[in-house]
Amino acid sequence: MKDYFENINKAFESKARLGIMSVLMVEDRVDFSTLKDTLQLTDGNLASHLRALEEAAYLLVEKQFVGRKPNTTYQATKTGREAFNEHLNALEQLILNNRK
Amino acid sequence: MKDYFENINKAFESKARLGIMSVLMVEDRVDFSTLKDTLQLTDGNLASHLRALEEAAYLLVEKQFVGRKPNTTYQATKTGREAFNEHLNALEQLILNNRK
Repeated sequence: MKDYFENINKAFESKARLGIMSVLMVEDRVDFSTLKDTLQLTDGNLASHLRALEEAAYLLVEKQFVGRKPNTTYQATKTGREAFNEHLNALEQLILNNRK
Repeated sequence: MKDYFENINKAFESKARLGIMSVLMVEDRVDFSTLKDTLQLTDGNLASHLRALEEAAYLLVEKQFVGRKPNTTYQATKTGREAFNEHLNALEQLILNNRK
């Protein structure tokens, strides 16, 4: 397989994670319910993908209170942005190779 | 989420399936061991991804004997090619949106 294939990052392969990272590349800081509405995922599904991305050090999670309500926000780390860009570059190569 | 996101096809989201389809877009007919070597997957892992793509009608499977040895070949269907192209178009949109 071509070299670019190595750079397809399994941490980003699912549609949900592509969506999460795409949102966080554009918005600096996003809360759980915004991600949920944008990506139309269930709480459990979204939470498990966010946890995996956090464990990979691609996301920063911040838990705060807005009044008495807990509010959790997510932010892509520098590592996460760089890794996601590499993944997108690899996908781009894959697309180009399929259109030759 | 943007419209293109709807067109990201979960049947192709894994790295293994992107790889399988990329090979089958270029080669007309490929046998199991060639796919295995090219994609560096285990037998079980490759077999399960191939089965899923076959069940989605994206692949045709042909079992033959070469002498006394069974030989299974895989071919992308017209439906599979079209669906994969749509998926690649959606990924391309995602990439473009991330670079704006």
